[in-house]
Amino acid sequence: MRTIDWQDGHIVAIDQTKLPHELVLMEIVTVADLVDAIKRLAIRGAPALGVAGALGVALAAKDSPENRTRDLAALRAARPTAVNLAWGVDRAAARLGDGPDAVLTEALDILEADVRDNEALGRRGAAWLLSRIGLPTVNVQTHCNAGALACVEWGTALGVVRALHEQSALGQVYVDETRPLLQGARLTAWELARLGVAHTLVVDGAGPSVIARGLADAVIVGADRIAANGDVINKIGTYPLALAAARAGVPFVVAAPESTIDLATVSGAEVEIEVRGSAELAEQAPPGTETLNLAFDVTPVDLVSVVVTEKRVFEGRP
Amino acid sequence: MRTIDWQDGHIVAIDQTKLPHELVLMEIVTVADLVDAIKRLAIRGAPALGVAGALGVALAAKDSPENRTRDLAALRAARPTAVNLAWGVDRAAARLGDGPDAVLTEALDILEADVRDNEALGRRGAAWLLSRIGLPTVNVQTHCNAGALACVEWGTALGVVRALHEQSALGQVYVDETRPLLQGARLTAWELARLGVAHTLVVDGAGPSVIARGLADAVIVGADRIAANGDVINKIGTYPLALAAARAGVPFVVAAPESTIDLATVSGAEVEIEVRGSAELAEQAPPGTETLNLAFDVTPVDLVSVVVTEKRVFEGRP
Repeated sequence: MRTIDWQDGHIVAIDQTKLPHELVLMEIVTVADLVDAIKRLAIRGAPALGVAGALGVALAAKDSPENRTRDLAALRAARPTAVNLAWGVDRAAARLGDGPDAVLTEALDILEADVRDNEALGRRGAAWLLSRIGLPTVNVQTHCNAGALACVEWGTALGVVRALHEQSALGQVYVDETRPLLQGARLTAWELARLGVAHTLVVDGAGPSVIARGLADAVIVGADRIAANGDVINKIGTYPLALAAARAGVPFVVAAPESTIDLATVSGAEVEIEVRGSAELAEQAPPGTETLNLAFDVTPVDLVSVVVTEKRVFEGRP
Repeated sequence: MRTIDWQDGHIVAIDQTKLPHELVLMEIVTVADLVDAIKRLAIRGAPALGVAGALGVALAAKDSPENRTRDLAALRAARPTAVNLAWGVDRAAARLGDGPDAVLTEALDILEADVRDNEALGRRGAAWLLSRIGLPTVNVQTHCNAGALACVEWGTALGVVRALHEQSALGQVYVDETRPLLQGARLTAWELARLGVAHTLVVDGAGPSVIARGLADAVIVGADRIAANGDVINKIGTYPLALAAARAGVPFVVAAPESTIDLATVSGAEVEIEVRGSAELAEQAPPGTETLNLAFDVTPVDLVSVVVTEKRVFEGRP
């Protein structure tokens, strides 16, 4: 099953807010509904957002130019941090002059490429890691969900995990809960169970201890944006894992498609970090408690061991 | 109001599992009930556990020697990581030969000393921090609850915060939620609101980013045990803050009474880290998901800027 797909002239996507308890498919026929699904994280994950952006242009292609301009601006801005969303919108929108069919062809190209690219990326990442670590099996720590649910199929960080698993080279996967929206507990645990991968859930504060205790031989995460200098922007809670991995001397591996690399952004300091509402984290706090709900963090390039894409391997710290 | 006290021949304590929504006092008349309250974290916090241990011996003092021996062994082992619990039990139990009144006198001495010591510790910590930072006001990051609710009154880490607040030297306090039991969101936010201290709640994964972004001038935490070499054992999620503080060059301050220092433990590697059940973190995960629910972590001494006790200041990294 694909996380997001195009069927009968509209988008069909898994509603990720309902997992792991229910597997519900959404049928999305308007850009407004797509924007809503993205804002409430029913569709999420940088590569999936790229595909969603392109398919959104296909939905809008038959609208009047005024409506289309308004809708695509809203879609492009639905979430600010992941570069892939705007990239997908822009790539498909560049074909609007050639008519709706050309737009759809472009969007479906992006969708199919996502599947191929992630598989290539996963296999390359697994090969790099086994070569670096020199062990027959590896235990890894991951964060959030950079799996099939963050893409069309296969996954980025979990694509590496899946490739390791297929080679019988995987031990245990430690999964951070990933507060506030628990993508690790809800989505990554669900995916790994379906793949038959042994996994253990920990609170976000425990990931660095899992690494310090030697339980994880590597950290593998995805990325929402990679700046030109190599700084990695990913789900809040990634940076502490990078700090712990550097101290423990274990590899910190970033698995992301080329579309995540944003050469227009010099460094992580320039990236707009999405700040979300209080409701996501204040349920148990006294009413009225102020929050700072940062959705992403910046991992400086000097903490990154490698960025693996579908085309390349960028090596960083030893 | 005191978090834990002795009234009419028994223990009266705030049930911390009910906060912040309800302020409920428990009347505890048996050691078995005290052990239960400690295990479910209705009474928690290293200094409060020390007092609870001593008062528990006072509850047991009139029992038969066999029952008493069994009950005090259970009490001493109710939570393994904080050294204060066993310390409180042992200190009061050393007076059993002098009769129940002597035991109670010893336990009440410990209780009253907790209040005095924490106030002294808080003022010393605030003075150290202002001198080190050289700013008129400081913004701090804290974790879990090392406040009045972790003690009898006043608090350790939040004792420093309170002392800063009283001197109008406090800006903002960033509070980690502290999964899985949310002592930051539930307890620290409640205490700081009562004190009129400006505070902002963040997810545990965001604390290191708060520090990296320059929003916090220092990290202040309590401790459950401090090993002879200076390694600090505290609530899970403390270590990532220490890593981030060291990288950002901001002080990492540990505020704890002398009773937390355990010279019998050479280093953090020797400390038994409590592993709690899955139910605390798997609510939203697929049924049957494995967990590793580490309750504490170890912050190596080289990441600690200072340990402040009621008597002394131990300086560490710059």
